[in-house]
Amino acid sequence: MDAVEVEALAAALTAGDQRVAARLITRIECGDESLVPLLQALYRRGGRTQTIGVTGPPGAGKSTLVSRLVATWRTQGRRVAVLAVDPSSPFSGGAVLGDRVRMAEHACDDGVFIRSMASRTHLGGLARAAGDALVVLEAMPWDVVLVETVGVGQNETDVVRHAPVVVLVQTPMGGDDVQAAKAGITEIGDVFVVNKADHPQADATVRQLLDMIALALRLHPERQWQPPVLKTQALLGEGIAELAAAIDRCFAHFASHPSDAERRSGARLRYRVGEVLRELLERRLRASGDPGIEPMLPALQRRESDPYTVASQLLERIG
Amino acid sequence: MDAVEVEALAAALTAGDQRVAARLITRIECGDESLVPLLQALYRRGGRTQTIGVTGPPGAGKSTLVSRLVATWRTQGRRVAVLAVDPSSPFSGGAVLGDRVRMAEHACDDGVFIRSMASRTHLGGLARAAGDALVVLEAMPWDVVLVETVGVGQNETDVVRHAPVVVLVQTPMGGDDVQAAKAGITEIGDVFVVNKADHPQADATVRQLLDMIALALRLHPERQWQPPVLKTQALLGEGIAELAAAIDRCFAHFASHPSDAERRSGARLRYRVGEVLRELLERRLRASGDPGIEPMLPALQRRESDPYTVASQLLERIG
Repeated sequence: MDAVEVEALAAALTAGDQRVAARLITRIECGDESLVPLLQALYRRGGRTQTIGVTGPPGAGKSTLVSRLVATWRTQGRRVAVLAVDPSSPFSGGAVLGDRVRMAEHACDDGVFIRSMASRTHLGGLARAAGDALVVLEAMPWDVVLVETVGVGQNETDVVRHAPVVVLVQTPMGGDDVQAAKAGITEIGDVFVVNKADHPQADATVRQLLDMIALALRLHPERQWQPPVLKTQALLGEGIAELAAAIDRCFAHFASHPSDAERRSGARLRYRVGEVLRELLERRLRASGDPGIEPMLPALQRRESDPYTVASQLLERIG
Repeated sequence: MDAVEVEALAAALTAGDQRVAARLITRIECGDESLVPLLQALYRRGGRTQTIGVTGPPGAGKSTLVSRLVATWRTQGRRVAVLAVDPSSPFSGGAVLGDRVRMAEHACDDGVFIRSMASRTHLGGLARAAGDALVVLEAMPWDVVLVETVGVGQNETDVVRHAPVVVLVQTPMGGDDVQAAKAGITEIGDVFVVNKADHPQADATVRQLLDMIALALRLHPERQWQPPVLKTQALLGEGIAELAAAIDRCFAHFASHPSDAERRSGARLRYRVGEVLRELLERRLRASGDPGIEPMLPALQRRESDPYTVASQLLERIG
């Protein structure tokens, strides 16, 4: 991609051209390597949107919650882009999740952009591809860019790591489930939501989350943001305005506490560079016409070789 | 590690020394780089155990199911090692999961080895570390090596990818939840279990899984194994003998269908080599005293640079 094309596409995005954005995200999904100069330019122009990650286990009601949040922002006049990432699906969400059905109330609203991504690309590449898609969206005149992902595993965490503020949605759970879910989530969430708050265990779940947050803050005295725990009933729209306000407070906190913000953006960028670096290495190996691992597979299968030896040999050829 | 030490440790493992295994797994967790010559030797001696992966969402009853399966194998005289991996936890499971409590019935049985691993190591390193731990266990005289992981995300999938046969445990779910969980699981599971089968939605969940499996087999006519869907009530021990038998049938199938087995072990080994290669690259950068990304972070944070440029610069220095 030459400089003229980069400038034309960047200008279209700056002007808010949604068709250009959709086409670029498709090219990112397909692993189009020619986009790097554009992404470099877009990254340097971005940073003006409020980018929010939303994650939580399947069945927690995230999609409904996100749709309600979008409606709230729209009444405030904010323009919103939603990127829904499904690491468990090999299909692009356009077909499977039915974006337009899923968030039908926003389908005809030009101030809302909704796009799904799924793991069409190679293993581990989805988080990187989602990061690239966010670079595109963040270069556009959205007030809010929301990236939503299903699940609580590592890859889901990886996807929301691109967002400076992360909302973690939980359902009311029994004691054992909270135990199982607990250890990692205070590392991820800035705002916690217990959805389906009419459930009898909702208050117990809120208390357990507050305990875990208090523990995490004792372990990390350098953190100045105290994550709130909110109750919502997304289906009824209850608690959504309070959630939107809590997200605003979180952004305001990071704006007024640069050391908090810098520590977190440092972690985010270290991770992001690592992702891009892995992608570059894979491309370099492919571009050099290296046959890669394939000729060495039979010996590995017969256990006449081993993965450590094969990896060393490949590394010598990259270097 | 020199050849004499490699030989001594390998001999101890071959003889079934569980204390040596436990110590080596701790060193793997801590990222001990000196183990590579040992792992090379162990991989080449392994391959005699039946290695089984078990995964599924939190709350599906996997731990109880695994404990019951172990009991069944013990009545058949089989010796069993269990590696429990928790990607959501920053703590090693020895403390948090309470291995000895969790599977108390096997605590005094010398024919059972139980060990937890958690993400003490750097991001993404847990699947690789679990793979190394399996290399240790597979070099020992176990009949069955079982690796269990919590969750349905990418990292959980990565962990069970090391096992030639994967059991996917589900709970009875409503239609929407199956939809959300569905797209990826037929890529992972060889044997499906609907636990808590007394639930009113159990039969509906079985039917949905069977439909998904049928679809996956139509999409992949090269696959000759038809994954069964079993109902269990792990708490009561119901369906466990049938599950053990189904796992045996799956191993027998792959033994008698080498093209099925080779295609799958090829995918497994490609992934494994990729993991080891990434680890080697990170080590090389550290060992060269390269300051890495740190000096470049401020410009990134000010958006005067971008992750694509920084990654290219790092790659030049590795190369």
